[in-house]
Amino acid sequence: MHKQSVKRSSKAGLSPGTIIYTGKHKVDRAIISLLQYDELSLNEQQETSLEDAVAFRDQRVNWINISGLHDVRLIEEIGKAFSLHPLTLEDIASTGQRPKIEYYDNYVFIVLRMLTISTGGSGLQDEQISMVLGKDFLLTFQERPGDVFNPLRERIRLAKGRIRKLGVDYLSYALLDVLVDSYFLVLENYSDEVEQLEEAVFNHPSPEHLARIGKLKRETLFLRRAVWPLRELISALQREESSLISGGVLTFMRDVYDHSVQIIEIVETLREMISGLHDAYLSTLSFRMNEIMKVLTIIATIFIPLSFLVGVYGMNFDVMPELHFRWGYPLLWLFMLSAVMAMLLYFRRKRWL
Amino acid sequence: MHKQSVKRSSKAGLSPGTIIYTGKHKVDRAIISLLQYDELSLNEQQETSLEDAVAFRDQRVNWINISGLHDVRLIEEIGKAFSLHPLTLEDIASTGQRPKIEYYDNYVFIVLRMLTISTGGSGLQDEQISMVLGKDFLLTFQERPGDVFNPLRERIRLAKGRIRKLGVDYLSYALLDVLVDSYFLVLENYSDEVEQLEEAVFNHPSPEHLARIGKLKRETLFLRRAVWPLRELISALQREESSLISGGVLTFMRDVYDHSVQIIEIVETLREMISGLHDAYLSTLSFRMNEIMKVLTIIATIFIPLSFLVGVYGMNFDVMPELHFRWGYPLLWLFMLSAVMAMLLYFRRKRWL
Amino acid sequence: MHKQSVKRSSKAGLSPGTIIYTGKHKVDRAIISLLQYDELSLNEQQETSLEDAVAFRDQRVNWINISGLHDVRLIEEIGKAFSLHPLTLEDIASTGQRPKIEYYDNYVFIVLRMLTISTGGSGLQDEQISMVLGKDFLLTFQERPGDVFNPLRERIRLAKGRIRKLGVDYLSYALLDVLVDSYFLVLENYSDEVEQLEEAVFNHPSPEHLARIGKLKRETLFLRRAVWPLRELISALQREESSLISGGVLTFMRDVYDHSVQIIEIVETLREMISGLHDAYLSTLSFRMNEIMKVLTIIATIFIPLSFLVGVYGMNFDVMPELHFRWGYPLLWLFMLSAVMAMLLYFRRKRWL
Amino acid sequence: MHKQSVKRSSKAGLSPGTIIYTGKHKVDRAIISLLQYDELSLNEQQETSLEDAVAFRDQRVNWINISGLHDVRLIEEIGKAFSLHPLTLEDIASTGQRPKIEYYDNYVFIVLRMLTISTGGSGLQDEQISMVLGKDFLLTFQERPGDVFNPLRERIRLAKGRIRKLGVDYLSYALLDVLVDSYFLVLENYSDEVEQLEEAVFNHPSPEHLARIGKLKRETLFLRRAVWPLRELISALQREESSLISGGVLTFMRDVYDHSVQIIEIVETLREMISGLHDAYLSTLSFRMNEIMKVLTIIATIFIPLSFLVGVYGMNFDVMPELHFRWGYPLLWLFMLSAVMAMLLYFRRKRWL
Amino acid sequence: MHKQSVKRSSKAGLSPGTIIYTGKHKVDRAIISLLQYDELSLNEQQETSLEDAVAFRDQRVNWINISGLHDVRLIEEIGKAFSLHPLTLEDIASTGQRPKIEYYDNYVFIVLRMLTISTGGSGLQDEQISMVLGKDFLLTFQERPGDVFNPLRERIRLAKGRIRKLGVDYLSYALLDVLVDSYFLVLENYSDEVEQLEEAVFNHPSPEHLARIGKLKRETLFLRRAVWPLRELISALQREESSLISGGVLTFMRDVYDHSVQIIEIVETLREMISGLHDAYLSTLSFRMNEIMKVLTIIATIFIPLSFLVGVYGMNFDVMPELHFRWGYPLLWLFMLSAVMAMLLYFRRKRWL
Repeated sequence: MHKQSVKRSSKAGLSPGTIIYTGKHKVDRAIISLLQYDELSLNEQQETSLEDAVAFRDQRVNWINISGLHDVRLIEEIGKAFSLHPLTLEDIASTGQRPKIEYYDNYVFIVLRMLTISTGGSGLQDEQISMVLGKDFLLTFQERPGDVFNPLRERIRLAKGRIRKLGVDYLSYALLDVLVDSYFLVLENYSDEVEQLEEAVFNHPSPEHLARIGKLKRETLFLRRAVWPLRELISALQREESSLISGGVLTFMRDVYDHSVQIIEIVETLREMISGLHDAYLSTLSFRMNEIMKVLTIIATIFIPLSFLVGVYGMNFDVMPELHFRWGYPLLWLFMLSAVMAMLLYFRRKRWL
Repeated sequence: MHKQSVKRSSKAGLSPGTIIYTGKHKVDRAIISLLQYDELSLNEQQETSLEDAVAFRDQRVNWINISGLHDVRLIEEIGKAFSLHPLTLEDIASTGQRPKIEYYDNYVFIVLRMLTISTGGSGLQDEQISMVLGKDFLLTFQERPGDVFNPLRERIRLAKGRIRKLGVDYLSYALLDVLVDSYFLVLENYSDEVEQLEEAVFNHPSPEHLARIGKLKRETLFLRRAVWPLRELISALQREESSLISGGVLTFMRDVYDHSVQIIEIVETLREMISGLHDAYLSTLSFRMNEIMKVLTIIATIFIPLSFLVGVYGMNFDVMPELHFRWGYPLLWLFMLSAVMAMLLYFRRKRWL
Repeated sequence: MHKQSVKRSSKAGLSPGTIIYTGKHKVDRAIISLLQYDELSLNEQQETSLEDAVAFRDQRVNWINISGLHDVRLIEEIGKAFSLHPLTLEDIASTGQRPKIEYYDNYVFIVLRMLTISTGGSGLQDEQISMVLGKDFLLTFQERPGDVFNPLRERIRLAKGRIRKLGVDYLSYALLDVLVDSYFLVLENYSDEVEQLEEAVFNHPSPEHLARIGKLKRETLFLRRAVWPLRELISALQREESSLISGGVLTFMRDVYDHSVQIIEIVETLREMISGLHDAYLSTLSFRMNEIMKVLTIIATIFIPLSFLVGVYGMNFDVMPELHFRWGYPLLWLFMLSAVMAMLLYFRRKRWL
Repeated sequence: MHKQSVKRSSKAGLSPGTIIYTGKHKVDRAIISLLQYDELSLNEQQETSLEDAVAFRDQRVNWINISGLHDVRLIEEIGKAFSLHPLTLEDIASTGQRPKIEYYDNYVFIVLRMLTISTGGSGLQDEQISMVLGKDFLLTFQERPGDVFNPLRERIRLAKGRIRKLGVDYLSYALLDVLVDSYFLVLENYSDEVEQLEEAVFNHPSPEHLARIGKLKRETLFLRRAVWPLRELISALQREESSLISGGVLTFMRDVYDHSVQIIEIVETLREMISGLHDAYLSTLSFRMNEIMKVLTIIATIFIPLSFLVGVYGMNFDVMPELHFRWGYPLLWLFMLSAVMAMLLYFRRKRWL
Repeated sequence: MHKQSVKRSSKAGLSPGTIIYTGKHKVDRAIISLLQYDELSLNEQQETSLEDAVAFRDQRVNWINISGLHDVRLIEEIGKAFSLHPLTLEDIASTGQRPKIEYYDNYVFIVLRMLTISTGGSGLQDEQISMVLGKDFLLTFQERPGDVFNPLRERIRLAKGRIRKLGVDYLSYALLDVLVDSYFLVLENYSDEVEQLEEAVFNHPSPEHLARIGKLKRETLFLRRAVWPLRELISALQREESSLISGGVLTFMRDVYDHSVQIIEIVETLREMISGLHDAYLSTLSFRMNEIMKVLTIIATIFIPLSFLVGVYGMNFDVMPELHFRWGYPLLWLFMLSAVMAMLLYFRRKRWL
């Protein structure tokens, strides 16, 4: 994840505007789908060609989604069909972009990151979503099929809520809203993992926990890098006056903005908790060390002096009068037992027991 | 607490403006109460219906309080009766909101968090309080019955202070003031707990303390997230010019603002003290480890060499002249006692005793 | 100290503007003193009544000082006599205020904190000083008799410097100047304590030091909370244009501002040094632990193997030829001494000796 | 690297504008190369003299590159030929500059740092690149031959992309773009090293790792100091209106700006990861210490009491009835084995085994 | 150093504008020197009286330097001769000032700190340099004779560079430039010390290193406090429009500003490195502790069980069949040697050897 954004280096020295897919998701072929609607009618084409999609384009809201970015020629053709700037095309294919918004004369270009937690446990998955918002069309680009927008498509198909009554700018807002909401799911997942790890660390700290803490740190760092520019982006969207986005939609943007701020707060809280985990790990180890050393010290302090004592009476001096006392042996036992008692009392008073 | 704000994910994919109660406080039914007053008259209805509350509404100050947010239909009806924006209604029911203020054409919408320390020791309780301030009405929404506003209600009933002489904007200020003041109680509670914990950690650090430190850290982090936006909110209230809030009330707002700044300072102080607790925990453990190791080292250093010595004279060599000396045994004791003395002096000089 | 500002909670739910003394200094009765002067004449009354003080008020500079804030009625009367806002009166009596400045129509209200180190060793004492600067009068409120302003009073009495030639605004500046200068004394005290503690920690770290470090941390945190708003306050004084403060005095304010910045720097330096103390504590403990463990390891490594060896020749096997060698016993000693030598060399090479 | 920027002290006391090469790369003689082009024609001279380069200068884009800065007279002559300010000449030769941009009447002066990872493993190499952008010429200065601009030269020679169609301002952008892109390579290198070190630290922490962590910290600190001002520089380039840079090129600058922000993020992420490495080092050591102490404690706790016991029956008292029991010896073994078993169970329950 | 700025407290309660020398450098008498020049002529008087210096003053650049600030009367007379504000005179003598710049009607007042490393090893020396820049004169005040400006004086005498051609504002710039450049020397010194200490800490950490780290921390903290306001000061000089400083000199100021930024970066880098030193100290101690404990554990684990075994065959039970076996003794040796082998293998596998 972290490396992906570094891999940009493969483009070093190339001419600006050169389109190269830098992501890791290779799909067989790009899938183009078209969704056209207004309040009354709906036309959906799940797999179509670019030519058809462009030909079908009409006065209604035209949402064209492209899944798969490795086909450079396709992206170039889209660029021609919708008059996109070469740098826009480059950014669409360079999948390590930060979330950002750029205003061009005839369209607004938005780069977003879609985050998902894979069920297989391989952790955080991230994918670049690019949006090109024009006067009557919305292009969305994703690296591979499968996204978080299906509930939205369903709402369009069933004409739920106000989406069918409003334009392409509301559609772009709705996509942003769904995307931001999907972040909460990812964060919940991390929140659960942190809590589990916390309990595990307290009960039985092991280096494996340390590795998991390190992984969580890196992933939340990545989350933060995805989320902060998202907030800036939405904030810029609200401030900037663009004829492409109507005032009514701007009011809705305020809501997405609130959510993005909430997400940032949760990410920062997670990061503080994870950093606390590491402290807890060290402290728990320290406490256990103390416990171990107490056991060792108690055993050693009791038995080492006693061993010395029985050693004394194991010596072979010719003249050792105690050895010939009638009660010598039991008296020694008595003395040793008293000494043990005294030490146990001492340890108890020191709160070691 | 922390999870609550994450649980927003249950709404992912829904149409914006969809009203879903996301809190955890389920009450049987929402209770609507009405308090109408001006300088001369007062009308209070502890439990009434929405229809009655709306019908009774007149030129006086109308304070309608709704306890219980699970009834979606009720919230929708209130929205219709007072022409509230769908997003306002959604925010009222989504109880994981940050404190915020939003200006609409005909009303000001304020989200706040009410914090209480439950006596049962289950720690910090938080609840979302939403306020809708209109020209002649104030709607307050809370998740369940029971709040910190009773002293204020009493002041209204008894016409104490200037509250009955002023309008609905002063009422909203008074609510804010009572709420902010109630934070001081919560903070005092934490302050006491930190001091107790500090003493406990110094006297006898245990992993249980570590868990309590962790809990305090999380809760003060939560407090901070509740308190910082509160200050922004009040600051925004002071700056923004709105016909709904008169200049006289703005002067009072400066006072609430001061209190919110004081609260932030106390929260930050608490956080520094809690972070210091963790350092104290580790340092105390470290010191105790040193003490334990000193005991072990003193005992071992004294008795291990002596044990070796008595071992020597326990050997069975045919030729060991010392064993046959007349004063061998007492001389050995003398030597060993002198060695112990020498070592004790050495340890004393090293300040280990 | 820290608790004092929290104790505000005792006022939760009360009507804004309610005057309650929240400090801890109870004095028998408030002492009112009056100092009137211009370039030529001086009238001083050490203990007077409010009525007299108000009646005496004339065109000269009138400085009325009130020591003792528990008498609510007195404060209310002062409020009436000088037309002060109810919130001003509330703030005068609520002694946990942050330093602040507030502009009212006919006066400027300044809250400050006076810090002193008590000689009895009970540490930092803080007291709230409130100033009300009017056109021809200056009211100062303190919690109990005794302050740092006596050198200033002496300067007025002896007409030293330019104070008698200038107005009430210069008097307020002079008070501020004396107060800020008195902070340096407090900081010097802390600086000395930190240096002493530093030496003590290096020489012989003990938990008592840890407690003192904790106390210093808390107190410098408190200092910082007192000092930062002081700087803001003075900065606000410089910027704000008020007819009550003349341009000439503003030039002097720049000097106080410089001092407040210097104080902040010293406080921050102190805080860094105290935080360094904790690190030094831990590191010194760590180093001592190493030393202790070295002693233990050297002793154990030398004598445990030797003990084993002498144990071997203490066994009672029928057939142990070594026991019957003529030189067996001295040879064993030779061997053991060589082994000790070898180990000592090894430890020396490892730099443990 | 760090020292280089400190070595500026060798210039202390000299007159401002004195040209002294402060770098460490000594080359035999400075190499001057010229690249002239417009859309149709190209003239390249790999090694030429200053006189020729100036004489050849025409209406086309003139890119003059100087490798080697130790020749003070050459720099002075260039200064005269292109009317550069003395401070510009001083900055070109003082190679410890921060990246910066300065606007002069007839040219823009840009200082950049070129970073490379040497293959020999001697780590990060950095070199100062100065650019002087005039109306129809671009001067670039580097400390020694060899740079990252060869792909760009190739693009110019082959007339790839839009570079031959645009002016000298686009050339300066292209140089900046190539330079910034080359940073990604350096960062990838560090990213790999951090990951390797992370694994090594977890598996077998050694002081050598500590030294490598320290080196990484210092180098990323250096990277950060190179990268932050770079972003400011590009941001200033975008904002400042200069007749030397056309609007079209400014649009491209936005792209370089995005890359510089990405680089900053990666550097900060690297720094957080390296700081995490140190924590991991300490924690792993702590865990290992615990493991070591467990082994010691288990062995000592089992055998020290048993040694005492066998010591007892090695004593030579006349009266020790147990010694004469028929089953005394095997019963003792039985007892000792049971004790070992009990202790092993105890350790297992404590999770030490 | 740190204390000096605190010692301001000795002035608490005094009238503002009271001149008291608060520094620690007592000199016998103040030395006044005069340097007058324009492009053509030069007049230098190494030791003169104030009266002469004032009398000689003419249209040329007049640089009057005063070494020694304890003579209050002299400073007052200078104040009168050049019409300086009382607060300026107070600041000149109060030597714990932060670097600052103040604009008065007829002059600019600049306070700077001159830093030097004493060769005797007593560490960082700092001295306050005050500059008063008037229309045709520059006053410089230093605490004692000896400064870093001699190369500049030489340049004036030899008419090197442009200094003799320009006015008093360029002279003030040149002084600033020399002073800032002298900081690089101080920083180089620290840089070297940090590197040496780093190596020492890795090789053999001792409490003496800890003390040196503490000292470095305090001194770089002091450096930072001297350097940050210096940058502000120069930045203020550039922004402020004053008739006393010409536009041409402002261009040169940009160069000094760059240097001050570089110095700040080096100070911050130093501080990060010193903070890293402390981490390295702790980590190295931790690693050494691990090594020590390994030795102890290996020795104890091998010999304690063996000691037990030989203890067994030292017992005096009547019936111990093994004692009478012919090969009992050599077989026991065989068994013990095998056990040692097994344990050594175990330790090797655990990588303890």
